[in-house]
Amino acid sequence: MTVTLLVNGQPPADPAHAIAAEDRGLQYGDGLFETALLQGGQVRFLDDHLRRLQEGCERLGFPAPGGDVLRAEIARVTASVRDGVVKIVVTRGAGGRGYRPAAGLRPTRIVALYETPPDLSARSISLRWCETRLGRNARLAGIKHLNRLEHVLAQAEWQGGFDEGLMLDTEGEVVCATAANVFVVGDHTLVTPDLRFGGVAGVMRRQVLRAAPRLGLPVTEEPLWPHDIESAGEIFVTNAVRGIRSVAALGTLRWDHYPVADKLRTALKV
Amino acid sequence: MTVTLLVNGQPPADPAHAIAAEDRGLQYGDGLFETALLQGGQVRFLDDHLRRLQEGCERLGFPAPGGDVLRAEIARVTASVRDGVVKIVVTRGAGGRGYRPAAGLRPTRIVALYETPPDLSARSISLRWCETRLGRNARLAGIKHLNRLEHVLAQAEWQGGFDEGLMLDTEGEVVCATAANVFVVGDHTLVTPDLRFGGVAGVMRRQVLRAAPRLGLPVTEEPLWPHDIESAGEIFVTNAVRGIRSVAALGTLRWDHYPVADKLRTALKV
Repeated sequence: MTVTLLVNGQPPADPAHAIAAEDRGLQYGDGLFETALLQGGQVRFLDDHLRRLQEGCERLGFPAPGGDVLRAEIARVTASVRDGVVKIVVTRGAGGRGYRPAAGLRPTRIVALYETPPDLSARSISLRWCETRLGRNARLAGIKHLNRLEHVLAQAEWQGGFDEGLMLDTEGEVVCATAANVFVVGDHTLVTPDLRFGGVAGVMRRQVLRAAPRLGLPVTEEPLWPHDIESAGEIFVTNAVRGIRSVAALGTLRWDHYPVADKLRTALKV
Repeated sequence: MTVTLLVNGQPPADPAHAIAAEDRGLQYGDGLFETALLQGGQVRFLDDHLRRLQEGCERLGFPAPGGDVLRAEIARVTASVRDGVVKIVVTRGAGGRGYRPAAGLRPTRIVALYETPPDLSARSISLRWCETRLGRNARLAGIKHLNRLEHVLAQAEWQGGFDEGLMLDTEGEVVCATAANVFVVGDHTLVTPDLRFGGVAGVMRRQVLRAAPRLGLPVTEEPLWPHDIESAGEIFVTNAVRGIRSVAALGTLRWDHYPVADKLRTALKV
């Protein structure tokens, strides 16, 4: 449930009527989002979230809201709150009919505070393989855009019994979990999909990419296939809100010790 | 410019504040749309638009609004208006954070009337090839869902000099124009991409598929490649609002007579 909501810096008189029907975020998914953890009054990894948002705006070709503006709005929705989830949505703005963006649109900013999810401290989780595939598109790969029907359909595949699902692209490469990146531990190395054709370059993924070499763990980004996942000695998934979660089960496969993920959790304090 | 707008059957007090920020259409592009021509007080091919909308809802797994409800709302936004464009957006509804659809959401309906585009009677147009590719996804192919960033980026590639752009998928197959389907005339046959991996099964495309055999023109849906387009004796594109438009130019290629498209335009009165 939303606790607080700002649309272009204003609290809407009625949150059920906050956005223009003509907003291109609604009409075409023409925008981006970020989801960050508020922890002890601080938004974790905020710089990285704002950097990715800015890169996404550049990729879609519209002006990014100023970081100072977003920081101020985040401060307002989180004022006197210690813990929660901050979601930022930025769209190209409202106006016009037709795919071509009209000139001079003013991007829409939505900054909202949600409650912390209940299962935040889980150390290990159970995965499944999703049937829904991800289409390939290098131009959209890495950014956290609003075209997320594939992820919606993937999560709608199951209701209980699993915490997450791994997704393949249409050529059968492993891309990500529905709402997380995935890492496998090889022979003294860490490997994660390279996201050249899809997936989101996650903020927690970035922390792991930076921290692992400092811990003596070389890390590579490269194509991964289901066999690489299923034959790994250790697997974990990463998400900016949920941190690093070890995979205890994938279908009928089981894992029960997580030394690399434990080391990263300790180092990153997540 | 929007003339009239209904959201769930109500005219919003302020169209700039019509939709919940939590609407899944905005958050994830989790919905569908239709764009139909209002002509002489009648919505052209309305049955086909409503059928495709219903099929899209089934594919995405949420209840379609009743056809009677939508017809009544269309009648209200078009009352006493002779000509225009009717746009319908249906989303899974508002609520929750996270890709998984919560149970029991109530779909959002937006019915809006726009002015008729100025260039409606153009018989022939000029095309270009777009650089932006379409990702492949059989589960989303054919329906007119709200995940349209690829089309937005494709139309943003050019500003003037061309009326439309042809799009390839990531494997190089021709799928469609940015906002139209494409047909090529072969040796006494008509061919259009089969849309097994992407594209929208257009309402005007459907009219052509039905009418062509009656006019002695066998028509097939099959994979098409750029060479098939560029070597064709005649090409046309179809769109529910703009009808059938012959291709006079594609890059440096030129065509100047359009017997098959003319025959179809006459037969279909478009």
